[in-house]
Amino acid sequence: MRQVYVNGDYLPETEARISVFDRGFLFADGVYEVTLVLDRKLVDFAGHMRRLRHSLGELDMAFALTNEKLLDIHRELIRRNDIEEGLVYLQVTRGAADRDFLFPADATPRTVVVFTQKKSLVDSPLAERGLHVITVEDLRWRRCDIKTVQLLYPSMAKMEAKSRGADDAWMVRDGFVTEGSSNNAYMVTLEGTVVTRDLSTDILRGITREAVLQCAQDLQLRIEERPFTVEEVENAAEAFSTSSSGLVSPVVRINERVVGKGTPGPMAARLRQLYLERSRASAI
Amino acid sequence: MRQVYVNGDYLPETEARISVFDRGFLFADGVYEVTLVLDRKLVDFAGHMRRLRHSLGELDMAFALTNEKLLDIHRELIRRNDIEEGLVYLQVTRGAADRDFLFPADATPRTVVVFTQKKSLVDSPLAERGLHVITVEDLRWRRCDIKTVQLLYPSMAKMEAKSRGADDAWMVRDGFVTEGSSNNAYMVTLEGTVVTRDLSTDILRGITREAVLQCAQDLQLRIEERPFTVEEVENAAEAFSTSSSGLVSPVVRINERVVGKGTPGPMAARLRQLYLERSRASAI
Repeated sequence: MRQVYVNGDYLPETEARISVFDRGFLFADGVYEVTLVLDRKLVDFAGHMRRLRHSLGELDMAFALTNEKLLDIHRELIRRNDIEEGLVYLQVTRGAADRDFLFPADATPRTVVVFTQKKSLVDSPLAERGLHVITVEDLRWRRCDIKTVQLLYPSMAKMEAKSRGADDAWMVRDGFVTEGSSNNAYMVTLEGTVVTRDLSTDILRGITREAVLQCAQDLQLRIEERPFTVEEVENAAEAFSTSSSGLVSPVVRINERVVGKGTPGPMAARLRQLYLERSRASAI
Repeated sequence: MRQVYVNGDYLPETEARISVFDRGFLFADGVYEVTLVLDRKLVDFAGHMRRLRHSLGELDMAFALTNEKLLDIHRELIRRNDIEEGLVYLQVTRGAADRDFLFPADATPRTVVVFTQKKSLVDSPLAERGLHVITVEDLRWRRCDIKTVQLLYPSMAKMEAKSRGADDAWMVRDGFVTEGSSNNAYMVTLEGTVVTRDLSTDILRGITREAVLQCAQDLQLRIEERPFTVEEVENAAEAFSTSSSGLVSPVVRINERVVGKGTPGPMAARLRQLYLERSRASAI
């Protein structure tokens, strides 16, 4: 049975429990990270830790566990659960306290939960076929740079996509794409420029985004970080998304419109390939 | 020790636990209600159940427990925990399932948690003194009519209020007050009209709001349901908020500006009094 880390203990998943008074449960007062595992090793762990500290900092959530200790826990779970390829999920909440909108005392111990998911992510039929995405209005809160567990709307958007026979949903605010339900969104113009939304409080600073933009730069591709419209994507040469679980995932249809040739594009393929090579080489 | 209801069991609060895979914990995929208890009886329980069904319905969350059964649980906890006055908190989540943005199978059992809080709400030093509120930009998601546990921003707003020496925060969108951190917001014009924001997806349909507006109507007060600005509140005769825990709470200062005479106004006092009388009379 899968082992889960909860506040210092490694437990069988059926015994991995938290208090009903946990603020993660009552107030969504928690943040998380999902790290890719390739060849039993962690991809860009340092980047995930940097972002975790950003999220915690923005929420005034002091957190004593060091990155070194968190790395130990990640590695121990990979070992115990025999994760050759998959994901490690880490969640930190403000801890358990009687229900009050005011934060509890600083001394309240944080809740730390870490679990693994064994998944085949590199060999992906979906990435080979290319994703169909729909667009939905971005109704999320306005601090999407903080990776909180307030994921109900992205979850609803993904269900909306499924009900319309699609694979994912891209969010649109004021006519411009912000990001996917759980990934960053890109298009490639007819001139070959890779376009993705610039960083702000409207989107998450994707760890895979950072790595893939570095790949694009090293391939000497033109990059523009700016908002873009759905219409621009419809008329683009290619589109794709990036995330820890989707790596680089080509998008071949947006709503009822085919993107490019309607098959995964060469730019997305190159970026996926290079990203994978580098991730395997640098994983720890 | 306080007893808590969790999925069919009454447990000591220290043993009241849920799975770390609960979607309430991982995705904030849950809704809640807080019902006022006066004289060991529940105030407007039927109204809370109506709103609970609305929240569940909007999230496509089928839920088998009847209102009758939920009433039994509420009453049993009031008895076990000896709640003369206070609150009963009910949370329903989509249940536990391995982490996936897509909703789990419909057959996934919902998680149901109910707990009590013993509180002195009628005799409130804060209501006697009158609240100082600050205003903050309303950054929440755009479906505030659904009472989800995505409460991080209201919680942050309340902390911001505390750090500025105030008691609560009112949220402002596009220059107009939406609602308080966990209550509906009102002002009384110099002409004696009670003004509160009209219902939409921007605010919660307050159960206390409904009851207090009925009181206002029966007192033959003029009522306007419409957006109002912070400047209007600053120049109003009175201001107040309503909620299950705050009942009718006078507001005497907004940011650095005194409202009216800077003391609790007569209209708020009358409404609080009538609301309390009626609540005591109709509680079950």
